[in-house]
Amino acid sequence: MKYESFHNLIPKYKVIFFDSYGVLKTYRGMIDGANDTLKSVKDQGILFKVLTNDASRSPEQMVESLRDIGLDQVSPSDIVTSGMMAKDFLDNKRLNGKSIYLGTKNSAEYIFNEPGSGISIRDYNVEDFDQIGSVVFLDDEGYEWEVGVNKIVNLLRRKVVPAIVANSDLIYPVSKMDVSIATGSIALLVEHILNRRFIHFGKPDSPMYHYAFQNLLESGSYSKKDVLMVGDTLHTDILGGIKFGVDTALVCTGNTTQENVHVAVESTGIKPDYICDSIG
Amino acid sequence: MKYESFHNLIPKYKVIFFDSYGVLKTYRGMIDGANDTLKSVKDQGILFKVLTNDASRSPEQMVESLRDIGLDQVSPSDIVTSGMMAKDFLDNKRLNGKSIYLGTKNSAEYIFNEPGSGISIRDYNVEDFDQIGSVVFLDDEGYEWEVGVNKIVNLLRRKVVPAIVANSDLIYPVSKMDVSIATGSIALLVEHILNRRFIHFGKPDSPMYHYAFQNLLESGSYSKKDVLMVGDTLHTDILGGIKFGVDTALVCTGNTTQENVHVAVESTGIKPDYICDSIG
Amino acid sequence: MKYESFHNLIPKYKVIFFDSYGVLKTYRGMIDGANDTLKSVKDQGILFKVLTNDASRSPEQMVESLRDIGLDQVSPSDIVTSGMMAKDFLDNKRLNGKSIYLGTKNSAEYIFNEPGSGISIRDYNVEDFDQIGSVVFLDDEGYEWEVGVNKIVNLLRRKVVPAIVANSDLIYPVSKMDVSIATGSIALLVEHILNRRFIHFGKPDSPMYHYAFQNLLESGSYSKKDVLMVGDTLHTDILGGIKFGVDTALVCTGNTTQENVHVAVESTGIKPDYICDSIG
Amino acid sequence: MKYESFHNLIPKYKVIFFDSYGVLKTYRGMIDGANDTLKSVKDQGILFKVLTNDASRSPEQMVESLRDIGLDQVSPSDIVTSGMMAKDFLDNKRLNGKSIYLGTKNSAEYIFNEPGSGISIRDYNVEDFDQIGSVVFLDDEGYEWEVGVNKIVNLLRRKVVPAIVANSDLIYPVSKMDVSIATGSIALLVEHILNRRFIHFGKPDSPMYHYAFQNLLESGSYSKKDVLMVGDTLHTDILGGIKFGVDTALVCTGNTTQENVHVAVESTGIKPDYICDSIG
Repeated sequence: MKYESFHNLIPKYKVIFFDSYGVLKTYRGMIDGANDTLKSVKDQGILFKVLTNDASRSPEQMVESLRDIGLDQVSPSDIVTSGMMAKDFLDNKRLNGKSIYLGTKNSAEYIFNEPGSGISIRDYNVEDFDQIGSVVFLDDEGYEWEVGVNKIVNLLRRKVVPAIVANSDLIYPVSKMDVSIATGSIALLVEHILNRRFIHFGKPDSPMYHYAFQNLLESGSYSKKDVLMVGDTLHTDILGGIKFGVDTALVCTGNTTQENVHVAVESTGIKPDYICDSIG
Repeated sequence: MKYESFHNLIPKYKVIFFDSYGVLKTYRGMIDGANDTLKSVKDQGILFKVLTNDASRSPEQMVESLRDIGLDQVSPSDIVTSGMMAKDFLDNKRLNGKSIYLGTKNSAEYIFNEPGSGISIRDYNVEDFDQIGSVVFLDDEGYEWEVGVNKIVNLLRRKVVPAIVANSDLIYPVSKMDVSIATGSIALLVEHILNRRFIHFGKPDSPMYHYAFQNLLESGSYSKKDVLMVGDTLHTDILGGIKFGVDTALVCTGNTTQENVHVAVESTGIKPDYICDSIG
Repeated sequence: MKYESFHNLIPKYKVIFFDSYGVLKTYRGMIDGANDTLKSVKDQGILFKVLTNDASRSPEQMVESLRDIGLDQVSPSDIVTSGMMAKDFLDNKRLNGKSIYLGTKNSAEYIFNEPGSGISIRDYNVEDFDQIGSVVFLDDEGYEWEVGVNKIVNLLRRKVVPAIVANSDLIYPVSKMDVSIATGSIALLVEHILNRRFIHFGKPDSPMYHYAFQNLLESGSYSKKDVLMVGDTLHTDILGGIKFGVDTALVCTGNTTQENVHVAVESTGIKPDYICDSIG
Repeated sequence: MKYESFHNLIPKYKVIFFDSYGVLKTYRGMIDGANDTLKSVKDQGILFKVLTNDASRSPEQMVESLRDIGLDQVSPSDIVTSGMMAKDFLDNKRLNGKSIYLGTKNSAEYIFNEPGSGISIRDYNVEDFDQIGSVVFLDDEGYEWEVGVNKIVNLLRRKVVPAIVANSDLIYPVSKMDVSIATGSIALLVEHILNRRFIHFGKPDSPMYHYAFQNLLESGSYSKKDVLMVGDTLHTDILGGIKFGVDTALVCTGNTTQENVHVAVESTGIKPDYICDSIG
């Protein structure tokens, strides 16, 4: 584990995977200098991908929101989300019946190809479980928790159908001090009540890394040693990168800070190859 | 583990501890014959107590609601609730500052002796954490979950204060098929997000059994061998009874049914002394 | 949470509960000044009890081993162990059949009143499960783990009997740097493999505190406000004390040190009333 | 979920992934008819792979042991083990220092390319932690548990290094009634004591499925819809197959039996596409 300026790390790799929240941006907007760093990465002929645990928006919508805060180097094909993995899963598996989703209309429009194949938990009537073939946890917004979570618990007690968690994160930061509870926490609550384990997508699991890496292989020949994963969270970004077999750099601009980085590494036992102040 | 008519068990003991929900009553009202059974227990000179995981009401209010469905043998002094344990704790410990509670106004009126010492999470402003000395999970009603749970998570991230769970139950039945998520689940979600362990009250922990037993000793001399605990839930009523050292009887009128009783005992390893169809 | 010299705390209470390991002694012997402190407690007319998670020895043997390192103020009736709770449980419950124990011969001699009622896992033949009525986890010594734990897992898969954990501690310190795995970890492994929850004795659960407190009431009238619990471990000594409703003091001579005390309190959310360097 | 003869399923797919233990063989030897089934699969021009959670042997040694019990249709290149994933990880990551392993000499010879890069826990001296760069859980044999697990706990308390679990299974069957505790349980015990999460390899995680699928793509063009995963364990074989996005068939010749298949599916919520008596 070495302390290193991020700019010194760039030329050592052919590909960089960035987490988004806490690395490129925070609740306050773009991380200082992040856009220039992405430009510099490109100018050096190095590829990058953005790997983010998010199931609330399409890649196009993400690019737009990054542009709004001053990040104009990212295109939709650079983005890999946990929602894409869930979408792939739903497209690929021929699940019978309709899907119930917990999330916003917008998140559902991205995930479900066919209009009408996804039904919001708000519109689900507890008696109609016969026609339901799966349940998808998309977002923490778009429904009243008390009503929605109770409905889902009772649906899954009545009928065994696959339950998909399109974003396993437990919380996300909303200000310097405060966090907001994310979809992964809602799913965890239901798993605990039912004593079941759902189908989770998102870092630290391998599929997002695999997907990004396979995508690279279409534009050239790369080995895992050519790749650096950059993240602010030890148990998602860094653990996932280590397990996938690429080098990892932890930045101190998000969930991990310069103050808590040592305690965090020692207590979790998750050790990145590099620690950087910021990518900016 | 013997199958036995509950009426044959009664004369073997000097004291009977009953769980309430699933034993004396269900969502549909009184268990058939339950009031006659309580009468018969009394007529045989046998004492009884009602031990219930509940923090939403006072013993007086419980007696009233039992009377409403035809159970007129229970007086307030027969009732031991997990809420009473939490109340005792709060009365006894000189906790500084005010308490934030998640629950209804009614539940707070019972728990907090001094008016104004408890503040509903609804009325709590995130910036005012300085004056807060404890957090109490009372009930699943009385607040919007999304707002309340987010506020509590951020309060407990900002300030380390004791968090008390006045009812550890995860769910409670609301119809033949359906359940409702209880306070214990809400607390569990917050514990998991924060990676902390709160101060829990309720069966299977010993304090409710101790309290009921100590109370008995004021009216005579009893040993634990004189006591039978009757419940419908293996991991609360029965496990708690076994651990406290009294005999236990499982009834099949609530969480455990004649259909699932064998699978439940084998898979949990929690084995009551007796299995009875019903106390009625 | 106040920093306070332990000697200043003594006169504020009528009773003091001490943990043993990390408070009165460590692997190196008596904590400097501990015997003088106990003498001073007695001289001030204050009662004390020693509450220890241990199931390997009788109170008499403990007194002897304390005396060997210079602590001569403790008598057997001052000692409350998790093993005593397990012994009480086994004496009180009329469990059928014989008990299989994991532990030393010495630990079994204390726990089982009748000679021959406990059988070491070493002497248990997997085919003889018919005659077995309970399983007791006593000590991490006295059997080969590989053989013993495999036998217990298969016994409990074949037959549902109560499993008692007479000491829930996961580890105990054996030198400045190193720890040794305790009975509680062995039990936890078996619980996890079988997906069951055993009957645990030991702090932070209430029974040891109740037992010590009831015992006090035989020699006078005390309330919980008269009692201070002193320990070195947040999630056993201090959490248990808080939950039982007595004041708590954390000492920095064992599992918690002056270096890690702040991180430990913040990360667990378990906050003692006082922090003291040492009882010495 | 349909009941189907396995022979009717074969022609519906272009590729079949088989679990080994409980599907091709048991403790008693080959599953009746399994070799003829593999022959028939080949004769129909369908490819197969064997995906097994095992880190005790090389693919060549596995082929040999399958041949010994009458299965002569499997070649080393058909085999994908969790040990291969761990080996890949260790080969690919440039971990500093030496590896400590818990397992047999034979398992280490397969995992470590360079002789001397892996040191058995038996030969590790607690004072020599400076030179250690990683820890690998390979097998439940090859060391005394009491000594080995205590050494590993103390090593990982002194030094934060990556810990790799090369087989996450908790138990494996050794007779009709009995099981033996596997490496995954040993690792879990250490994770729990240290409150850390190690780097796990094996089903249900995706890498073994990805590896097998990528390997297929070298011999033709396949989509996930062409693949059937066949296993006897819901939470590894079937959950992993579902998550990877292929069809799944549960056989009743191993961990799941015709007697418990319904309870198992209902209680876990993991639902295979097909249930078959046996592949034979």
